[in-house]
Amino acid sequence: MKSVLLAGGAGFIGSHLADRLLKRSDVERLVVVDNLWTGLRENLAHIRDARFTFVRSDVESFQSPCMFDEVYHLASPASPPWYMQEPERTISANLLGAFRLRDLLLPGGRFCFTSTSEVYGDPLVSPQPESYRGSVDCTGPRSSYDESKRCTEAFLFESQRMRGLDVRVVRLFNVYGPRTREDDGRAVSNFIMQALNGRPVTIYGDGMQSRSWGYVDDIVEGLERFFWRDPIEHRRPLNVGNDREIPVIDVARHICRLVPGARITHLDPVPQDPTNRRPDLTVANRVLPGWTCHIPYERGVALTLKWFRSQLTSDYTAMSA
Amino acid sequence: MKSVLLAGGAGFIGSHLADRLLKRSDVERLVVVDNLWTGLRENLAHIRDARFTFVRSDVESFQSPCMFDEVYHLASPASPPWYMQEPERTISANLLGAFRLRDLLLPGGRFCFTSTSEVYGDPLVSPQPESYRGSVDCTGPRSSYDESKRCTEAFLFESQRMRGLDVRVVRLFNVYGPRTREDDGRAVSNFIMQALNGRPVTIYGDGMQSRSWGYVDDIVEGLERFFWRDPIEHRRPLNVGNDREIPVIDVARHICRLVPGARITHLDPVPQDPTNRRPDLTVANRVLPGWTCHIPYERGVALTLKWFRSQLTSDYTAMSA
Repeated sequence: MKSVLLAGGAGFIGSHLADRLLKRSDVERLVVVDNLWTGLRENLAHIRDARFTFVRSDVESFQSPCMFDEVYHLASPASPPWYMQEPERTISANLLGAFRLRDLLLPGGRFCFTSTSEVYGDPLVSPQPESYRGSVDCTGPRSSYDESKRCTEAFLFESQRMRGLDVRVVRLFNVYGPRTREDDGRAVSNFIMQALNGRPVTIYGDGMQSRSWGYVDDIVEGLERFFWRDPIEHRRPLNVGNDREIPVIDVARHICRLVPGARITHLDPVPQDPTNRRPDLTVANRVLPGWTCHIPYERGVALTLKWFRSQLTSDYTAMSA
Repeated sequence: MKSVLLAGGAGFIGSHLADRLLKRSDVERLVVVDNLWTGLRENLAHIRDARFTFVRSDVESFQSPCMFDEVYHLASPASPPWYMQEPERTISANLLGAFRLRDLLLPGGRFCFTSTSEVYGDPLVSPQPESYRGSVDCTGPRSSYDESKRCTEAFLFESQRMRGLDVRVVRLFNVYGPRTREDDGRAVSNFIMQALNGRPVTIYGDGMQSRSWGYVDDIVEGLERFFWRDPIEHRRPLNVGNDREIPVIDVARHICRLVPGARITHLDPVPQDPTNRRPDLTVANRVLPGWTCHIPYERGVALTLKWFRSQLTSDYTAMSA
């Protein structure tokens, strides 16, 4: 039986991972630690399980009376407007968080970390294999996120090299879906909230910058398989994402088709906004045979829109009550 | 009058910087904090100055009753065999050290940091301008050093952006000279110690990998000018090094000419040993007009050899006493 710690478990992806961890019969205890900086307590409100505990705390100063067999480190903002607003705290959550969490791991335990495609920066090769070293401006406006993810990877793989730590690191590409914050600030949720609120759907630049949009169910399926379900020999970072690259404008247009009256407006491009980002999934196809992002963006966006609509309705119901 | 904190001040470069700081009449107090991991108390043994205090402590847990007007963060091993042996501690010294030191800075104070040409990794362009984003394997054997320097740069420049912190960051290229540890492990001191001890001078690979060797007096002159002496508008990282690129084998051969009986032997290449490293000094020439590495390697190596010989003599004298 396993004692499991999930840092950042009230977040968008973290809360989906919590649901899957609680489906495991070998988990005797799941502690979620989250400071609710970008996470939301509501993301876990549906959980009714005696094995589950929520602790509100910064991850880097988290105090625990016990140690854990498995640690999942997802404690970090992931959206540029959020991490750019508190860059020092972002570095602290990722890296000081990793130091703290590593010390809470039982001998022989497993440390799982969600890194990011941002370690590739504004890539000069496409798609990006895990071996690509990246093109990151380590003093630029995205550096707190990019560099703290890179440095946390360094910390973990050096811990693997020096102490034989069982490390699992995924590099996530763009993910979207239910439980994204309304004010998350990234494209899909932005577009949906703008459309639902009758505001113009804003595109920075011409919208031809592309992203590989992964629907959260597909992505978390990849995490589950790599982190605990499959027998894994692979001891290096693993790209997890959708390799179907879609221009931002296509997603915006699709949302406008689904929300009557919605329309697009163009704003100035954002500095150092990566022009492309697409995972090379060669390694993932070998390590996780059969895994793929099978939900097309048209369906994923519709599901996400439906969820946001239900949230707005329940907000409205709550306000009227 | 300035209260100054120098972290890593018992190290090779740190101790030279301490000497220069104590030449300033506006320094009323110089605290050196060093855990003597790679630093040596002997490097500061010559200092007789009432303004000077030495504290043996890890930088990241350094406790101080007072704050400082200027902080110099040089607390990090810099030689691959040293940082590869304790990678987690290397990350901690650089990054957790920066968090700690920043909190010890008085409002309006200045934070100076010695970063490294290793932020460029195994560069794909030569020479490397400050704008080059680098080619670093963030999970490789050099990553603890490279990535913690990169992430500390990110932390400092984000602190500059968010709080207006006065930040000075230099990227040092290879430095050599008196006060290098005998067991430092980098080329010049290695070659000298091998030659003086009658052992073969070891070259990894064919020795054609080049470095830009900067003699410590030239380098510390650059630091002094950038950190406090010149009026500086430049608020970005600055390359400080010698742009005369010399193959490793040339340095080894020169030492063999100076030490009778010394001879060279070739070993297998080291994984991920950068094949070249040379600063683009365009920015330095503008920011520090007239500054240059004017000591040629032949003279610098002779000076360093003389110093190592004097150390061996004094060791021998000490042992005989």
